[in-house]
Amino acid sequence: MPIKANDPNRKSWIPVPENSDFPIQNIPFGVFLTRDDVITIGTRIGDHAIDLGSLHQLGYFKDIPLTDDIFLQDTLNDFISDGKKTWRLVRNRIAELFDVRNEELQHKDDHKQIVLFTMDEIEMQLPVQIGDYTDFYSSKEHATNIGKMFRDPDNALLPNWLHIPVGYHGRSSTIVPSGTPIRRPYGQTIPKGEDQPVFGPSKLVDFELEMAFITTDANALGEPIDVTEAEDYIFGLVLFNDWSARDIQKWEYVPLGPFLGKNFASSISPWIVTLDALEPFRVQSPKQEPQPLPYLRHKGNNSFDIHLEVDVTPEDGQSTTVCKSNFKYMYWSMAQQLAHHTVNGCKVNSGDMMGSGTISGTTPDSFGSMLELAWQGTKPVTLNGGEERKSVADNDTITMRGYCHKNGLRIGFGEVASKLLPALDLKAPKKNK
Amino acid sequence: MPIKANDPNRKSWIPVPENSDFPIQNIPFGVFLTRDDVITIGTRIGDHAIDLGSLHQLGYFKDIPLTDDIFLQDTLNDFISDGKKTWRLVRNRIAELFDVRNEELQHKDDHKQIVLFTMDEIEMQLPVQIGDYTDFYSSKEHATNIGKMFRDPDNALLPNWLHIPVGYHGRSSTIVPSGTPIRRPYGQTIPKGEDQPVFGPSKLVDFELEMAFITTDANALGEPIDVTEAEDYIFGLVLFNDWSARDIQKWEYVPLGPFLGKNFASSISPWIVTLDALEPFRVQSPKQEPQPLPYLRHKGNNSFDIHLEVDVTPEDGQSTTVCKSNFKYMYWSMAQQLAHHTVNGCKVNSGDMMGSGTISGTTPDSFGSMLELAWQGTKPVTLNGGEERKSVADNDTITMRGYCHKNGLRIGFGEVASKLLPALDLKAPKKNK
Repeated sequence: MPIKANDPNRKSWIPVPENSDFPIQNIPFGVFLTRDDVITIGTRIGDHAIDLGSLHQLGYFKDIPLTDDIFLQDTLNDFISDGKKTWRLVRNRIAELFDVRNEELQHKDDHKQIVLFTMDEIEMQLPVQIGDYTDFYSSKEHATNIGKMFRDPDNALLPNWLHIPVGYHGRSSTIVPSGTPIRRPYGQTIPKGEDQPVFGPSKLVDFELEMAFITTDANALGEPIDVTEAEDYIFGLVLFNDWSARDIQKWEYVPLGPFLGKNFASSISPWIVTLDALEPFRVQSPKQEPQPLPYLRHKGNNSFDIHLEVDVTPEDGQSTTVCKSNFKYMYWSMAQQLAHHTVNGCKVNSGDMMGSGTISGTTPDSFGSMLELAWQGTKPVTLNGGEERKSVADNDTITMRGYCHKNGLRIGFGEVASKLLPALDLKAPKKNK
Repeated sequence: MPIKANDPNRKSWIPVPENSDFPIQNIPFGVFLTRDDVITIGTRIGDHAIDLGSLHQLGYFKDIPLTDDIFLQDTLNDFISDGKKTWRLVRNRIAELFDVRNEELQHKDDHKQIVLFTMDEIEMQLPVQIGDYTDFYSSKEHATNIGKMFRDPDNALLPNWLHIPVGYHGRSSTIVPSGTPIRRPYGQTIPKGEDQPVFGPSKLVDFELEMAFITTDANALGEPIDVTEAEDYIFGLVLFNDWSARDIQKWEYVPLGPFLGKNFASSISPWIVTLDALEPFRVQSPKQEPQPLPYLRHKGNNSFDIHLEVDVTPEDGQSTTVCKSNFKYMYWSMAQQLAHHTVNGCKVNSGDMMGSGTISGTTPDSFGSMLELAWQGTKPVTLNGGEERKSVADNDTITMRGYCHKNGLRIGFGEVASKLLPALDLKAPKKNK
């Protein structure tokens, strides 16, 4: 356990604003484009980004076995492949180097000029090349809400839900970093009471408040990962907005699951916060009743107390926090999700991403989607400016934030913020079509 | 249209056995490991593989704008990114160079020694790095059979099926080339009449006879591909065995679709046959009634007459052809699948793979899965050795073949053959678990 890096009393010689998500105890990993148009792997302290590629070239990681170009890459995949021991050595070394008591770099202005950037000098990129993306459905409250709305209120949870961390495959190619605008998608929908579908822009675009974890190479094809070892293969977590088009999804999803209602876009926060940084915020998962099958049983504190919030901001309008939830509400832990995912021998690679599913709590203000917040349109959400929302409107920006807080230490994820653009103006239909 | 390359009367100076899938009119693309342990991109004529990397280094593609290392790669992704015009130039040039009337290379023994390999000197690899894999469900006969077995025999097709090329996301990381053995997967299943699941090896492993197409970079995020242009973004096709564990799938798949019942493995044939090579075998798709929405309408011959067969071969036993089907039975065309997939702006990249779904015909001997052939276990399939099968048995090898044949010209895919190994012998459960 990296005790030193997590010591809440440590300070950095880089200034850290009060309530920053990025004190020296965080040390997240990301990829950014510098002012010189160079792509590099980096970390962040306060409002400064640190170029790890240059830091390595300058010799500051010389005691750690790393290839010369490990940080001079446009994704974290190779670094993540190096494994947990290496991640820890690098994080601990960064914690040491930027500690206020350390003088190695603190007064070397020529080196500092090379490795330090203010946040407005850089552009955050997608941190990993995502090979496969899986989305789980692990909030009992969310699954219950959906069951109440669309199936039987008295038997809201499906029979398999308490036995399986239900999940499905998503689309990697449309996962984009915070800041990338999203287009309202077109698709087929079925008008109420009709039996012929119509084509047009989705009328029910929604957000889903999720988190996602990123894996390292975990197993060989055909071999499972034990639930008690699964966390060793998890590099870290990001905030995840799983954009959804409810009307498209509703018509398409039986029997093979959501497809075009989901794969037009998902947005992530760009800094991956490691499990090591989250260690002080471990909590128990909800009690599981009935007890799951043996391959899904584990003891101890398998979840994390991460406060989550969602804001809706109309174009030129004021922000409204419409949801306050928490990662600890998840019924199934990440370790259980990963053990289940590989119990059939499914191969997991470096850079794979696994979403939690929408994270809803028990109270209506903790529901993680507009579908639940506005209860299928029956209880519109009133924004601070007086407008109402049953779904996301054109030019709304959806911002999700997440942070842990305990004993004076705050570790956060920053935010994922993305704007919904109006649907494309499709050309008139061609002749003969 | 590459008339010359497809001329059925042309012969190669490389010997081509009678009934070979790989005459000079085919020119498929693949990736292989040579006798010198070098990975290269290549093609095949008769029983010889041709190293395109060396051919390019020797100057035989000098009139085509190609980067120097385009064939010296371990995947075809970059070549596929070069686009249709380049694929055609390269295929036409190979057709010219190996034509019996061409003397450029035919008598240069030193060059031939470098570029030609017999098939037993090489090892075929996965031809592309698959970014995203989607599986469709586009055979009306298959969807109807499944509906009859598991839902209502009188309303076998679900309401959306005739309007949407139904599809779902699959797992890229477990797609393996022909020859890779597959492990019988473990998982949760629900015993008949019980309400508590059990854990163990799947008892109902099945094959699914499919084909899959491979795309090039097709669009920007947020932009659709027109159905009339969709084929321009399809590089070619392979045979696809979508291994399935029916008992795992049955318990897990509601409401988000198949997951662990599918993602333990899918097997593909290693040579990608281009749409240009398949051009002479175009046929009409089945008539679509009702007419689909305008974005899915296209005219002309949008399918291909590809004969498909599946053999089951027990360990040390004789082969039995259990299924004869045809790609032309597909209700939805590849162009419709790709147009639908992108109508919401979903981004499609070079190396993405899209499976057809199980290809069943109308007669029982044309059903593309053991589930349908043995009609849910009620009509066991008798093999030539006298054994019966309701699903795939341990150590069975499943071999799928595909070829077109018309006016004396045969263009084929070779085969995808893979053996089902027994389930892993899991260690005894740990204490306290």
